[in-house]
Amino acid sequence: MTSDELRSVTSDRFQDSDLILACRGRQHPRVPVWFMRQAGRSLPEYRSVRGSGSILDAIADPDRAAEITLQPVRRYGVDAAILFSDIVVPAHAVGFGVDVVPGTGPVVEQPFSGRSDLSRLRPLDPESDTPYVIETVKRLVETLDVPLIGFAGAPFTVASYLVEGGPSRHQARTKALMLTDEALWHDLMQRLADLAIASLLSQVAAGASAVQLFDSWAGALSPEAYRRAVAPHSARVLEALGGAGVPRIHFGVGTGEILRQMADCGPEVVGVDFRVPIDAARRRVGAHQALQGNLDPAVVLAGEAAACDATRDVLARNDGHPGFIFNLGHGVLPDTDPEVLARVVQVVHDEGRVRRVSD
Amino acid sequence: MTSDELRSVTSDRFQDSDLILACRGRQHPRVPVWFMRQAGRSLPEYRSVRGSGSILDAIADPDRAAEITLQPVRRYGVDAAILFSDIVVPAHAVGFGVDVVPGTGPVVEQPFSGRSDLSRLRPLDPESDTPYVIETVKRLVETLDVPLIGFAGAPFTVASYLVEGGPSRHQARTKALMLTDEALWHDLMQRLADLAIASLLSQVAAGASAVQLFDSWAGALSPEAYRRAVAPHSARVLEALGGAGVPRIHFGVGTGEILRQMADCGPEVVGVDFRVPIDAARRRVGAHQALQGNLDPAVVLAGEAAACDATRDVLARNDGHPGFIFNLGHGVLPDTDPEVLARVVQVVHDEGRVRRVSD
Repeated sequence: MTSDELRSVTSDRFQDSDLILACRGRQHPRVPVWFMRQAGRSLPEYRSVRGSGSILDAIADPDRAAEITLQPVRRYGVDAAILFSDIVVPAHAVGFGVDVVPGTGPVVEQPFSGRSDLSRLRPLDPESDTPYVIETVKRLVETLDVPLIGFAGAPFTVASYLVEGGPSRHQARTKALMLTDEALWHDLMQRLADLAIASLLSQVAAGASAVQLFDSWAGALSPEAYRRAVAPHSARVLEALGGAGVPRIHFGVGTGEILRQMADCGPEVVGVDFRVPIDAARRRVGAHQALQGNLDPAVVLAGEAAACDATRDVLARNDGHPGFIFNLGHGVLPDTDPEVLARVVQVVHDEGRVRRVSD
Repeated sequence: MTSDELRSVTSDRFQDSDLILACRGRQHPRVPVWFMRQAGRSLPEYRSVRGSGSILDAIADPDRAAEITLQPVRRYGVDAAILFSDIVVPAHAVGFGVDVVPGTGPVVEQPFSGRSDLSRLRPLDPESDTPYVIETVKRLVETLDVPLIGFAGAPFTVASYLVEGGPSRHQARTKALMLTDEALWHDLMQRLADLAIASLLSQVAAGASAVQLFDSWAGALSPEAYRRAVAPHSARVLEALGGAGVPRIHFGVGTGEILRQMADCGPEVVGVDFRVPIDAARRRVGAHQALQGNLDPAVVLAGEAAACDATRDVLARNDGHPGFIFNLGHGVLPDTDPEVLARVVQVVHDEGRVRRVSD
């Protein structure tokens, strides 16, 4: 299904939710809030249903994946659910040979190293390769009374795991590949963009109301490297979703220098980590795209007073701009006290101000 | 010895070296170049003299420490030596209880967690606590025909190791301390600033021609947190060295958002990592302080062609500004091929252009 065909099936149900209106910079009563990794190890109810073993097993089980996705919505009253997933799900599903090791992250037995490895990244057929993702989304959409955000890893961040073989501090092999074999690099990125597109379209077809493209490690690149090697592929993913009628969020960490470029990839919403104050991000991105962020997840560990102060600072810096979604600057840390996050939600809902817009 | 008394003993020998002239933005014939961690695991001659065990043992042995410091100067013909050291040397020397574990980094048995731990950070008496540092510097200055750069960790980065107990991705405990007990935080930072000051003054008294303050993890902070909790202490360290007659370099990673603040701490030179192009850094810092950087160390692993291209890009972005020292954006990676770094030095020396200045 193309994204234009999708538009007809896209649910209108959440078009007037705070989240979707904020994504589009339109009038809404209350600043919406959700948290990256709101579902996860910080929640006791997660730990009790998660089971052991690879997270990919839990993701492949719609019962567990749907329950895990719902838990933080119930607990916090956040304004969106984020599909419980992982950025390597599509690559795993097409048989690239990648697993997620608890405490470590994605690990690849045979890292991507040459042209012959491209064949390990065949196109994704969501119906047969990831039916569990579709099933989980469908169940969630039946249950949820807030929008569900679909989930995909951006080509660069996924590539960095496949090339390095696992988490890496410097992404040296990945950078070497993009610099020494540009043709192969772009072929790899194209395959990974195709995976992200197919997966996101299937999530939207199943009822997701928005999508987020996670390019967590994009901040490891110089602006010039991002421009040449990464931005065109992320832009293609976002563009392919453009006709689907759902807002697109484009997120990365440490992206202060490339925020304008990430915005130019065409999303409705640009994710901002805590290093760039929202008012500074607004000056870089402009008034016509929404921002999402950017409480420092480490500050949440400093307790309620510190977290609430920092929450108010983020809200003040947004200064009532209607194109704003409150979130953390990166994912919830495992040691987070859920009570503190609950207070953050309360502060955002009680004190977040949305300026009057004429539309 | 105060820094003003020091000025009288500061060697004039290297005042007209390319490095010192570039630090001061004065006319010099050729762009100077050195590399952070130019001495280290990437060099076979290092591996053959380093020995096993803690790096602190090698640092405490003037024979080895001097030899290790000299190796890259001999091999590459770089324009400066950097004292072989570690940011925890002073804290270790006053008995805080910190070691450096090969492959891991600084590890603290009993992390800093409360006011009573302040007593574990008594003032440093360089003559009796770190005589080996003084001895190493003296030997080096007798031998070297390029300036020696003294070495100290900035209070925040050292604090993060002492509080976290070791390397940390999120510095959550450190941020919690600065947010929840501001008085204790500032007392800790003051002690660590005192350690850095005492150590740097002793290095200058022994003959170091410049100093670099390493605040590697400052980029983990929001600009507001940096302003309140860190900048005053780093500024105090730099100020205390101000009368010593040697240029001061202030370095951190991921510091795009705080570059102006780091410059405002008062150094002659601001270190720039590879995420901020030199021309962008110049706009932020202004024309009156020198910049140092900023080739991506990971790009050096992509081989000679990629490294030389990227080197030329850095030089082009500096556009001949006399206040410029070529370096990497962070330390040399262990897997680096020394032959490639040698070529980088050659390209900088052959092609680096210094504009005519009227002074």
